[in-house]
Amino acid sequence: MQNLRGNAIVGQSGGPTAAINATLAGVIYGAMQSGCIDNIYGMKNGVDGLLCEDIIRLNGYFEDESRLEMLKKTPAAALGSCRRKLPAESDAKYAQTFDKLVDILKKYDIRYFFYIGGNDSMDTVAKLSKYTQENGYDIKVIGVPKTIDNDLIGTDHTPGFGSAAKYISVVMQEILRDTAVYTVKAVTIVEIMGRDAGWLTASSALGRVCGAPAPDLVYLPERAFDMDEFFADLKRILAEKPNVVVAVSEGLQFADGRFVGESTQGGAVDAFGHKYLAGTGKALELAVKDKLGIKVRSIELNLPQRCASHIASLCDIEESFGVGRAAVQAAEQGVSREMMVILRDNDGAGEPYSSVYGHMDIDLIANRTRFVPKHYINERGNNVTDECLKYILPLVNGESYPEYKNGLPVFFEF
Amino acid sequence: MQNLRGNAIVGQSGGPTAAINATLAGVIYGAMQSGCIDNIYGMKNGVDGLLCEDIIRLNGYFEDESRLEMLKKTPAAALGSCRRKLPAESDAKYAQTFDKLVDILKKYDIRYFFYIGGNDSMDTVAKLSKYTQENGYDIKVIGVPKTIDNDLIGTDHTPGFGSAAKYISVVMQEILRDTAVYTVKAVTIVEIMGRDAGWLTASSALGRVCGAPAPDLVYLPERAFDMDEFFADLKRILAEKPNVVVAVSEGLQFADGRFVGESTQGGAVDAFGHKYLAGTGKALELAVKDKLGIKVRSIELNLPQRCASHIASLCDIEESFGVGRAAVQAAEQGVSREMMVILRDNDGAGEPYSSVYGHMDIDLIANRTRFVPKHYINERGNNVTDECLKYILPLVNGESYPEYKNGLPVFFEF
Repeated sequence: MQNLRGNAIVGQSGGPTAAINATLAGVIYGAMQSGCIDNIYGMKNGVDGLLCEDIIRLNGYFEDESRLEMLKKTPAAALGSCRRKLPAESDAKYAQTFDKLVDILKKYDIRYFFYIGGNDSMDTVAKLSKYTQENGYDIKVIGVPKTIDNDLIGTDHTPGFGSAAKYISVVMQEILRDTAVYTVKAVTIVEIMGRDAGWLTASSALGRVCGAPAPDLVYLPERAFDMDEFFADLKRILAEKPNVVVAVSEGLQFADGRFVGESTQGGAVDAFGHKYLAGTGKALELAVKDKLGIKVRSIELNLPQRCASHIASLCDIEESFGVGRAAVQAAEQGVSREMMVILRDNDGAGEPYSSVYGHMDIDLIANRTRFVPKHYINERGNNVTDECLKYILPLVNGESYPEYKNGLPVFFEF
Repeated sequence: MQNLRGNAIVGQSGGPTAAINATLAGVIYGAMQSGCIDNIYGMKNGVDGLLCEDIIRLNGYFEDESRLEMLKKTPAAALGSCRRKLPAESDAKYAQTFDKLVDILKKYDIRYFFYIGGNDSMDTVAKLSKYTQENGYDIKVIGVPKTIDNDLIGTDHTPGFGSAAKYISVVMQEILRDTAVYTVKAVTIVEIMGRDAGWLTASSALGRVCGAPAPDLVYLPERAFDMDEFFADLKRILAEKPNVVVAVSEGLQFADGRFVGESTQGGAVDAFGHKYLAGTGKALELAVKDKLGIKVRSIELNLPQRCASHIASLCDIEESFGVGRAAVQAAEQGVSREMMVILRDNDGAGEPYSSVYGHMDIDLIANRTRFVPKHYINERGNNVTDECLKYILPLVNGESYPEYKNGLPVFFEF
């Protein structure tokens, strides 16, 4: 097979994570090592930047390899991000938009297109690769997954999840100590990101399989939330010990489909039609205060969950870099219209964790959600199983720390 | 001078911090090294535990010095805490309560009493030392300061402040990157702990004196908050750049004394009569959404500010240990009814930061608040001065990390 020669471009899209720049570093490293890629360009703010030719040549920034190391440990998206959904075939703007994109790609002789993002970003990869294929422009288009939510199908887990899970599980260890210092009865509700899938909330319970404390109750959006059962569980635990810690997903719903946090929110919807959520913890805090009249506090872990590079998972950062580099290698070998995946090498039964990189048809992946499976949630629906925690545990292994100067972290800037 | 011989007891009181266990470790270490202290006891949950003889002998736990190292890096209060305010002289229960305390102290032959805590805990030290002195029981009673709020007078800064400031300034660096990835206009409001004093909120701006990003607007409770000026500042900055980050203290007040967060809260009051606050960020978020109609998010940094041992300030952890040890040395030399203080050795003008430990009359300290001084806040009241940041910067220097096992931090447990 003759390798395609030309330039490459990389973009970042969707919500930032602590690991998306590690994947960017992996793509850049792979491209700079490649025998068939001349220049590696970066689009600013994803396809938004590409559409207005806001493009920078990246090679010059990384002749010094220590700059790549710094980029690996920098949170958020160094190239900027966007939430643009490209038009569907049925849309009047379809041909116009994609013609424009292809014109720009041709102008820069771009033959390799890498797009790092979550579920919605894979939609962009699917559409662009379909259009270029149907219109005879030879370009390899590969999606590289990124989402703290761990909700993409086809991959054992997503780059970015491990670092978010690491922050959540570490902070939960600290919160469990903090809330245990008083003897007065109190309930602490910790709200964790996860609109549809409860992977991050599940990770808050990791202490349980490590001989460390863990939250008493853990509620995921995969199971309908029952207020009466919640209060029954709370009362039972409060009879045994003064301090109860509850972990809840932001996307928790009642059996009738109403969000637990809905009462305190308007009906805002984001560009992809997702309901905007917040306030699940607050809603439960008010309910507990109202019904039990005891000390109660809610903690929304909020943005640090997705950008806490100061305590990232080393496993995640290395894999995020590795999968970016593997994307370039796959593209060189002619792979296109695929998303990179991470496959677990063994089931961890007595063996150390290891993983390999692969890829799969993007059309099978885009716009689908991978939920926490039934057997990862206990029967009563108020905690996760040991099997679930053993799946997550290797993904938070190792600590990735940034460099510090004068007490503050030093991050990469273009 | 003849040294007093006997046992010692130590307790922790008030809100937990990431450094209060380092001070406990310092006291234990000092006591175990002491020539005149036979046993070092710990009271569980502060004076609450002392009053019901919930006391443990600590020596046995720390024969292996690595256990002290682990304790130094463990968040919250390993001995437990309380918020009990001892009765005043005018109170009917005064004599009864203090007689009981002294009986227990005599029973265990306790001649050294160390109490680690904040403003309210120094009140306990002042009352107990006065009572024992007036009633002829020879005991050295010393307070060791602890508060993330940095609002005790007489000391250059308080143990615990540096680690909270470290977490806040590090997370702020991450939030500033995270919120900068999109090009759509957006306001992010970060609510930081500080009921009366704005020291922690000020520390969110440290990037500015390190060539790193910093929040655009910083509002402390020391200055009345003006909603019109806030919106004028917001609009001016939004005209220049798409993403504005605002740091606000939880205790922010309008000129008429109303709390900015009051609207979203009930009128709850804690045991010391402090108004319970939360929701300053949320209140401002709603105001911005209402008035400007743009994307806005509020982030309450919440509990991790006071318990994030995973990224503590090494300067703070070392000083917190040092001041605990120094408390024992001072007591051995006959000091009593005093609070330990940290004094800055030089003003930092070109010289590296260093500090020494001292002590001062507890009656001058208890129940007073050290505010951020006027010259540390800019004229418009919407940011802090470089002088303020240069005061804070050395206190966040160095990184203290706990040990990890299986990806989770390993903390000390009795």
